[in-house]
Amino acid sequence: MNREWELLHTPGPTPIPPSVERAMIQPMIGHRGQKCKELLENIAPRLKPIFGTSGDVLVLSSSGTSALEAAVVNTTSPGDEVVVVVAGAFGDRFAKICETYELKIHRIDVEWGSAVEVAAVEEQIQAHPNVKAVFVTHCETSTGAMHPVEQIAQKVHQDSEALVIVDGVSSIGGTPIDMDGAGIDLLVSGSQKAMMLPAGLAFVAVSDQAWSIINDNPRPRFYLDLRSFKKSLDAGQTPFTPALSLLFGLQEVLDLIEGEGLEQVHERHRVMREMTRAACRGLNLPLFVSDEAASPTVTSIRPQTFEAESFRKVANQEFGLMTAGGQKHLKGEIFRIGHMGYSRPANVLQYVSILEIVLRRLGHEFEPGSGTAAAQDAYLQATKELD
Amino acid sequence: MNREWELLHTPGPTPIPPSVERAMIQPMIGHRGQKCKELLENIAPRLKPIFGTSGDVLVLSSSGTSALEAAVVNTTSPGDEVVVVVAGAFGDRFAKICETYELKIHRIDVEWGSAVEVAAVEEQIQAHPNVKAVFVTHCETSTGAMHPVEQIAQKVHQDSEALVIVDGVSSIGGTPIDMDGAGIDLLVSGSQKAMMLPAGLAFVAVSDQAWSIINDNPRPRFYLDLRSFKKSLDAGQTPFTPALSLLFGLQEVLDLIEGEGLEQVHERHRVMREMTRAACRGLNLPLFVSDEAASPTVTSIRPQTFEAESFRKVANQEFGLMTAGGQKHLKGEIFRIGHMGYSRPANVLQYVSILEIVLRRLGHEFEPGSGTAAAQDAYLQATKELD
Repeated sequence: MNREWELLHTPGPTPIPPSVERAMIQPMIGHRGQKCKELLENIAPRLKPIFGTSGDVLVLSSSGTSALEAAVVNTTSPGDEVVVVVAGAFGDRFAKICETYELKIHRIDVEWGSAVEVAAVEEQIQAHPNVKAVFVTHCETSTGAMHPVEQIAQKVHQDSEALVIVDGVSSIGGTPIDMDGAGIDLLVSGSQKAMMLPAGLAFVAVSDQAWSIINDNPRPRFYLDLRSFKKSLDAGQTPFTPALSLLFGLQEVLDLIEGEGLEQVHERHRVMREMTRAACRGLNLPLFVSDEAASPTVTSIRPQTFEAESFRKVANQEFGLMTAGGQKHLKGEIFRIGHMGYSRPANVLQYVSILEIVLRRLGHEFEPGSGTAAAQDAYLQATKELD
Repeated sequence: MNREWELLHTPGPTPIPPSVERAMIQPMIGHRGQKCKELLENIAPRLKPIFGTSGDVLVLSSSGTSALEAAVVNTTSPGDEVVVVVAGAFGDRFAKICETYELKIHRIDVEWGSAVEVAAVEEQIQAHPNVKAVFVTHCETSTGAMHPVEQIAQKVHQDSEALVIVDGVSSIGGTPIDMDGAGIDLLVSGSQKAMMLPAGLAFVAVSDQAWSIINDNPRPRFYLDLRSFKKSLDAGQTPFTPALSLLFGLQEVLDLIEGEGLEQVHERHRVMREMTRAACRGLNLPLFVSDEAASPTVTSIRPQTFEAESFRKVANQEFGLMTAGGQKHLKGEIFRIGHMGYSRPANVLQYVSILEIVLRRLGHEFEPGSGTAAAQDAYLQATKELD
C-alpha cells in the first residue's frame, strides 16, 4: 500500500493536521532572537489548561521517555523509596528508569488491561512511610486502560508527603485532567499522540511542591535539569537549542484546540471511544478493557475467532489501515486502535467499516453492517442534543 | 466545520495527495531553462496512455473550459455546421461556446441523467452532411451519466469527415478511453478531477486528422492556438509562461498513477462506483443514472423522502462532507458525490456510513448498516480474487 493511502490509527504516532504540517515548514528563525521569544511566550500560557494547571509547563526538545526520565532524575536521589504502578509496558518503563537510577521500588503489579485500585496504592504508602514519590501512568498505551490518577493523588496527599508523578503521554489533549485540583505533582507528556505533532517535544508540568524538591535535589543531571528549563522559560528562552519546527507546529496545534474548544476536544475523544466500543460489541469482538477503565484515546481488542496479527496484516495491506499489536506477553493476543488527536467520528465510521470487511475476510461471524449501525447509534446518542 | 476536517467529495475539485502537495512547493525554476525542458519532456510521453493516444497531449496553463474553447476555435470557422450533444450543464457549455463563435448548431438535447443514443448522432450526421464537428461530453459531471463517445466516434467516421471532439474533464484518469482506436479527434480535460491536481492546467489531445484541420484553420486565436503549443512542445517548451507548480505536481501525479498502474486506477474507480451504487440501493435511495450509463467518477442521487439540500447541509455541518447539488433545473432535486482521483474504497466506506447517519437524522427509513453492508458486498465481489 502506497504511503499516500495510509490511515494511521496507531496509538501514536498519530496523523498531523495539514495546517500543522504547513506551520512546520516555515523558515527557521534564530532561537535566541525576539521572534523565538515571542513564540515561546505565546505557547507557554496556552499549554496550561491542557494540563489542568496554572503552573508552568516546560517544553523539552526530546521524546516522551525523556520526560519520564526528567521526572525521575529531578525528584529523587539514589536509595529513595518509590512506589511504581505497573499495568503495562509504560508502567514497566517507569519502573526501569527508577531501577536505572538506583531507587528502592515498591512495585504494584496490576493485571495488564486493568486499572489499579486506589486502595492498593494507599496500602503501599501506609506500609512504606518513607516513600518519596508515586509513579503512575494515566493512560497505559499498551492496553488502553486508564488509572484513576486524580483519586490516587488525592489519597496519597492525605496520607504522606510523597510526590505523585503521572505519565500522561497518551492521555494529555485527549481527556480532561485537573492537575492542580487533584494535587498531581509532575504531569508529563509527549507531542506525538493527542497533541497532533510528530514526536520530538516532551512536556513536563510541575507543581509548587515538586519545585521545592527539584530545586534542592543534588542528583547530577544536565539536559534534563528542569531548573534550567524553568529559569530559561522565565526569560522567554530555552536552555538548549529547541526543535523549532515542532514549536511552530505546536503553536498551530494550540490554535486548533482553542478553535474547537478544549471541552469539545475531550468530548470528541469520548464519543470516539463510545463509538468504537459499541461497534466492537455489535461485532462480537471482545474488548480488552472494562467500560470503567477504558481510555478515550485507544481501544484494545482481544479476538477469539481469528488471529490479531492476521487482522492487522489484512487491514494494512488492503486498506492501509495502521493499527498496533500487543506488547510483551500480549503480542499476538490483542490489537489496538488509536483514536486521538487529529481523528474524529468520521474516522471511526471509516475504520469500523474497514474492520467489518476484514472480519468478513477472516471468517468472523456477524451481521454485516451491525458494527457500523452500533457505532452510528453511539454517535447519535452522544450528539442527541443536535436532534 | 474547520477546514482541517473537511472530506472533499465534490465531483471536482478533488483532494490532492500529500506527495503532490509537497511536489508543488518546490522552488520555482526558470521556465526557459534546461530543468523546465527536462520536466516538460518527462511529462509529455507519460500523459499519452491516460488519454489512450500515441499522439501529443498539449498542456495549457488554464482551466478546463479553456480546453473546450480551444477545441472550438482551433477546428471551426464562423458559419460551420456542428452537432452538439447536450445532456447536462457541460454539454450546454459546449453549445454556448459554439454559439459564441458563430457556428450553426444542430443540437441533440437528451434528458439530463441519460446518455445519448448513438443513432441520434448518426441521424444528425446523415441529415446534415456538411457538419464539420461533433461535440460530446464523455462524463456529464452535472448528472454523472457517461455518453458512449467511442461508439459515437466510430459511427461518425463511418458516415462523414466530421471531427469528433470529446470533453473528458471528469472522466480522464478515472476511466479507460481508447482515443486512437475509436478515432476521437480532440480529447480535452482539466487537472482538478481524476488527475488529482488543483485547477489550472488543461489538456488537449489531438489526432492527425484534427491537426490537418487545425493547421489550415484561419480563425484568429492567440493564447489558445494549439499550433503554438505543438511547436513549443516539439522544442521542449511552452509558448507562454507555464503554471510551474502545477507541472511539478503533474509529474508526481504521473508517478502515482504509474506506481499504482493505470488499469488498476481505472478498476479502483469502477469499484468505487459499484460500492456507491450498491449502498444507495441498500438504503432505498433512487439513483439518478442507469447502470449502463453510470460514471465511475461521480454518482447522483435523487432523494424522494427528504430534501437533497438538507442532506448536503447536515453532512457538511456535522461531518465536513462536501458533496455537490444539482445544477440548473436539477437544483434541489439531486445531490452528487464525487469518487475520483485521490479517493478509494476506504473513502466510500466512510461516506456511506456518514450518509447513513445523516439519513437517520433526516428520518429516511432503512435498516441501519444496510448501506454499509451493501457497499462491503460490492467491494468483496469486486475483489474476490483476493480470497
